[in-house]
Amino acid sequence: MKIAIIGLGYWGPNLVRNFVGQPGVEGVVCFDVQAKKLEKIRHKFPMVEALTSYDEILKRPDITAVAIVTPASTHYSLGLQALEAGKHLLLEKPMATTAKEAEHLIAVAEKNNLRILVDHTFVYTGAVKKIKELIDAETVGDVLYFDSVRVNLGLFQHDTNVIWDLAPHDISIMHYVIPGKPRSVHALGVNHYNGVEDMAYITVQHDDKLMSHFHVNWLSPVKIRRILIGGSKHMIVYDDMQPSEKVRVYDKGVEITEEESLYRSLVQYRIGDMFAPRIEESEALSLMAAEFIQSITNGTAPVTDGKFGYEVVRVLEAANQSLRNGGQRVFLED
Amino acid sequence: MKIAIIGLGYWGPNLVRNFVGQPGVEGVVCFDVQAKKLEKIRHKFPMVEALTSYDEILKRPDITAVAIVTPASTHYSLGLQALEAGKHLLLEKPMATTAKEAEHLIAVAEKNNLRILVDHTFVYTGAVKKIKELIDAETVGDVLYFDSVRVNLGLFQHDTNVIWDLAPHDISIMHYVIPGKPRSVHALGVNHYNGVEDMAYITVQHDDKLMSHFHVNWLSPVKIRRILIGGSKHMIVYDDMQPSEKVRVYDKGVEITEEESLYRSLVQYRIGDMFAPRIEESEALSLMAAEFIQSITNGTAPVTDGKFGYEVVRVLEAANQSLRNGGQRVFLED
Amino acid sequence: MKIAIIGLGYWGPNLVRNFVGQPGVEGVVCFDVQAKKLEKIRHKFPMVEALTSYDEILKRPDITAVAIVTPASTHYSLGLQALEAGKHLLLEKPMATTAKEAEHLIAVAEKNNLRILVDHTFVYTGAVKKIKELIDAETVGDVLYFDSVRVNLGLFQHDTNVIWDLAPHDISIMHYVIPGKPRSVHALGVNHYNGVEDMAYITVQHDDKLMSHFHVNWLSPVKIRRILIGGSKHMIVYDDMQPSEKVRVYDKGVEITEEESLYRSLVQYRIGDMFAPRIEESEALSLMAAEFIQSITNGTAPVTDGKFGYEVVRVLEAANQSLRNGGQRVFLED
Amino acid sequence: MKIAIIGLGYWGPNLVRNFVGQPGVEGVVCFDVQAKKLEKIRHKFPMVEALTSYDEILKRPDITAVAIVTPASTHYSLGLQALEAGKHLLLEKPMATTAKEAEHLIAVAEKNNLRILVDHTFVYTGAVKKIKELIDAETVGDVLYFDSVRVNLGLFQHDTNVIWDLAPHDISIMHYVIPGKPRSVHALGVNHYNGVEDMAYITVQHDDKLMSHFHVNWLSPVKIRRILIGGSKHMIVYDDMQPSEKVRVYDKGVEITEEESLYRSLVQYRIGDMFAPRIEESEALSLMAAEFIQSITNGTAPVTDGKFGYEVVRVLEAANQSLRNGGQRVFLED
Repeated sequence: MKIAIIGLGYWGPNLVRNFVGQPGVEGVVCFDVQAKKLEKIRHKFPMVEALTSYDEILKRPDITAVAIVTPASTHYSLGLQALEAGKHLLLEKPMATTAKEAEHLIAVAEKNNLRILVDHTFVYTGAVKKIKELIDAETVGDVLYFDSVRVNLGLFQHDTNVIWDLAPHDISIMHYVIPGKPRSVHALGVNHYNGVEDMAYITVQHDDKLMSHFHVNWLSPVKIRRILIGGSKHMIVYDDMQPSEKVRVYDKGVEITEEESLYRSLVQYRIGDMFAPRIEESEALSLMAAEFIQSITNGTAPVTDGKFGYEVVRVLEAANQSLRNGGQRVFLED
Repeated sequence: MKIAIIGLGYWGPNLVRNFVGQPGVEGVVCFDVQAKKLEKIRHKFPMVEALTSYDEILKRPDITAVAIVTPASTHYSLGLQALEAGKHLLLEKPMATTAKEAEHLIAVAEKNNLRILVDHTFVYTGAVKKIKELIDAETVGDVLYFDSVRVNLGLFQHDTNVIWDLAPHDISIMHYVIPGKPRSVHALGVNHYNGVEDMAYITVQHDDKLMSHFHVNWLSPVKIRRILIGGSKHMIVYDDMQPSEKVRVYDKGVEITEEESLYRSLVQYRIGDMFAPRIEESEALSLMAAEFIQSITNGTAPVTDGKFGYEVVRVLEAANQSLRNGGQRVFLED
Repeated sequence: MKIAIIGLGYWGPNLVRNFVGQPGVEGVVCFDVQAKKLEKIRHKFPMVEALTSYDEILKRPDITAVAIVTPASTHYSLGLQALEAGKHLLLEKPMATTAKEAEHLIAVAEKNNLRILVDHTFVYTGAVKKIKELIDAETVGDVLYFDSVRVNLGLFQHDTNVIWDLAPHDISIMHYVIPGKPRSVHALGVNHYNGVEDMAYITVQHDDKLMSHFHVNWLSPVKIRRILIGGSKHMIVYDDMQPSEKVRVYDKGVEITEEESLYRSLVQYRIGDMFAPRIEESEALSLMAAEFIQSITNGTAPVTDGKFGYEVVRVLEAANQSLRNGGQRVFLED
Repeated sequence: MKIAIIGLGYWGPNLVRNFVGQPGVEGVVCFDVQAKKLEKIRHKFPMVEALTSYDEILKRPDITAVAIVTPASTHYSLGLQALEAGKHLLLEKPMATTAKEAEHLIAVAEKNNLRILVDHTFVYTGAVKKIKELIDAETVGDVLYFDSVRVNLGLFQHDTNVIWDLAPHDISIMHYVIPGKPRSVHALGVNHYNGVEDMAYITVQHDDKLMSHFHVNWLSPVKIRRILIGGSKHMIVYDDMQPSEKVRVYDKGVEITEEESLYRSLVQYRIGDMFAPRIEESEALSLMAAEFIQSITNGTAPVTDGKFGYEVVRVLEAANQSLRNGGQRVFLED
């Protein structure tokens, strides 16, 4: 199987590196509109084949799959062409800029019996997989909330706001680990400089006992990457800035002994041990690449398939719609 | 001057301790509806006088001022009685449960030429005073945002939600340090257990370039007390959980060289030194007590006067109104 | 039972507070050579009796026990007088300034059938008790090393160096949790200012597979209170500056599959979960006070009895002897 | 100029990468006794020339300099051959296993008018250069102590103990930033497993007011890389595990107002601001490579020249000698 990587900016070369070494991959083909970037990748990975047009790639019968690692605004049209040319499709996150586009890509893939994988890399990290495990195994109990902070200085983008840039990570993690459907979205943000929001707060309501919240910010003096997950049995802190023990699980909680009581003394706190489970250290991107190859080989849906990517886009789209309307609630229809 | 402390629950004894040692205070008188608490305070502070009714206190001509340290729902009626009896008034935060009540207290105080101080203790800490200094001296430049997280496990209260319990601290800090007026408020929260919200997110919009945000939560496995303040010249992290260097000032920022440009390369990041100014270590509560005594002696308004307390209540009230209406925007009128 | 507290400087009032509330204690009597301090304690604890001479205390038949909270250089003579007057004895750490003095106090106490407790408060903390539990239960396995850092700015003392001031804490913890006897001691230090060492390093050798090390320093810009304990099965980090999870237990280690092999690949690392056990939060000083009362009532030896205090003094004395001799090894005889 | 890299284990490829892109370098030649490693480097850096014997390299007149990145025990003989063949010499740290060998290499280089650079990479980091700047500019004042902790789990080596493995880093930093000469060395350590010490404490005495101390350990459950530097005017904490603000400078100190006084009240503490200067982020290894090229081109001594490397080896050798003799003091002769 040969795979083509389209777009060799910041992230593309990482995909090249991970597909070059991937079992089941016979060859990696590359394309970028900037000849300089093609040259650079050839210098670094001499075994890679560089083509000078996207069309050429789509016409090559020996190329089984295409990975689109270009700006988000081009995902839909480039992805659609690939699917129509009969190629399996790997899309960078977010998979599209509207839910409608995402739905169309999924429909075309289904019709042509092709796989789509959206590169929500965090879902393939040891930390996030461990968190899902802890929730699925009922260690956490009822999930009470999901609170994410992803802030740092930069990277300002000219064609997209901070929600489209940073929130796909956290929304994909939420979608992966939290059972139940988002029902509505609120978002508020500010653009201080160049016309796109550089900070925003997003609230997602699942049901009346579960809320998720996201703080994304390009203007923070410190880098914070932290998710708190409240649970009725255990609570989780996932701090991605820690060099080790990124996931900490607290045996902490509240017990209301008589729910109808008015008196505080009947609220009991439970404070037990904390533990930090060992986290698998394999590179997430390599696991994602393997998942893509396997989904093609076996004809099965990958974890972050088109439907998964669509659910993320739906929340992003709703968040941006709320943002445009001064923070009004936007309902997500079934 | 004698001062009476009403309410000897968790916080009252701290006020007793700070007024007992305060220059200008000749005597401290105490009252609580629970005789056991009066006994306990007498045991700990034998020099304190304990009276057995609030009426008695109000009638005593030698008592100049009254401090109300009772549950928030009683602040208004107890405070009003004190003002009508001609006593200067210290009120625990929040000063009342509605803006209307707060306004009425202010009006009565003005009519009777009495002082009101609301015990927003954080305003008297070295850390918050330093932050105000940095903003007033234009070290921060234009304030871009104010982001506060105050979360921990408990303390659940039966008569008030997490907004009324925790947010007064952060809203008072915001009101003290941020120039400009809040224009509107959004809030969303969840009650998981006993009928009151145990977690909430509040967004305050000042103008289209400045937003404040508050995360208050009784269900967090870890204790976080952190405020980020973005500025065009410097940015501040105030981490109250640090044993030292609580306020860190970062020479970091963004410079847009050509605002209309579409190209990312024209966004410049400035990353310079960080410094942590020395913070004055005097006990905030003692400074607050001194401010109250001084305001009575000199007939001047204290920093956290009735108007200050009213502004905080206004935001709290709007936040709760938004909460009741599924996160709808509530405008704050002038 | 009545107990007398001698010395009301920095620490004495804490003992007063803890004995005042202690079950089994009928009265607390105080003495200090400075009348001002006696007055102050009377103001704070009106139920306490203040006497104006040590002799008077020793003669009072209703006083069962005496706590010596004076500078270390006076522990021996004041303690000896108390024992000779038939009083049970609580001594601040270190119990004496030479091992010989400590031995003599023990001998006199034994002859008169009296208890000695040395106030090594750390031994009574939840954290240190938990560490002992983990070592005793073989969770740690063979102890490989004990490494302690206790550094901060000040408090400079004029009559004692940093070893006598800070190291008693860590040496008492070592003595409590580490099985096996110290065999020899090395120490090096510097006095930069006023004639006493303000920083020092102490190494204690137990046997050829176990070493303890102590860094004590009055001249550090940051406060560090951290003990690492290496073990063949688990390793411990005890960080007393953490607000919670002070004791962290790591399932980490090394396994040498073929000991005689020269090749690195046969060294295996084991990296598993980390856990932070819940720590009991009772005040250590109160538990120490209870232990003292109980040892008197039951005629049993307290955990930190005279022998315990003697072992600590022996190491301190050897460390200072090594310090005087340019870091030469000093053997501890049986 | 062409440069040959000898040894392509863990570190060698990093040197290849940095010399390949270095201005002034026309070609990079490689050699390793394992053909597999040569192949691997050719795959990654196709522009690199791979030779199959060291002799061949030494005979090639177009090769100006040789970098020895092999185990420490081979540095001397390989380095000597290079110098005798007229090649400038870059040696991995430590430059040799005895001071005598180091001296001989220096002598041969001088005779043949060749440069030696020892790869003490830390000296080329922004953090360490900033610390030297702060000390040279008298911001620190008199240096009171240098305290280093470098501990983690692994990497066990079969042919060298933890001192030879980890301490070269910290001793080179000490040698670079601390004025004044080491006079004597004490060291103690333990070997728990495979015959070499896996943990050790080293004390270096400069004069009677300045001491350095090193804790190196392969058996720590946590990774600590922290240097404290006490100064009479400012104190420094260099924490290499921090993602940013690695160097923190504290305006803290002690002032003895009357040195002969016995009373504590005359010791004054100064606690002022802390600042974290911006640190240059260039890759240290690249700066080292540039320094080597420049020293060859200009005929000047590099910062970490043979003499520098010799001073480090001298301390390491003395530390190991002390270790063998139960911690006895070893004097360093002039």
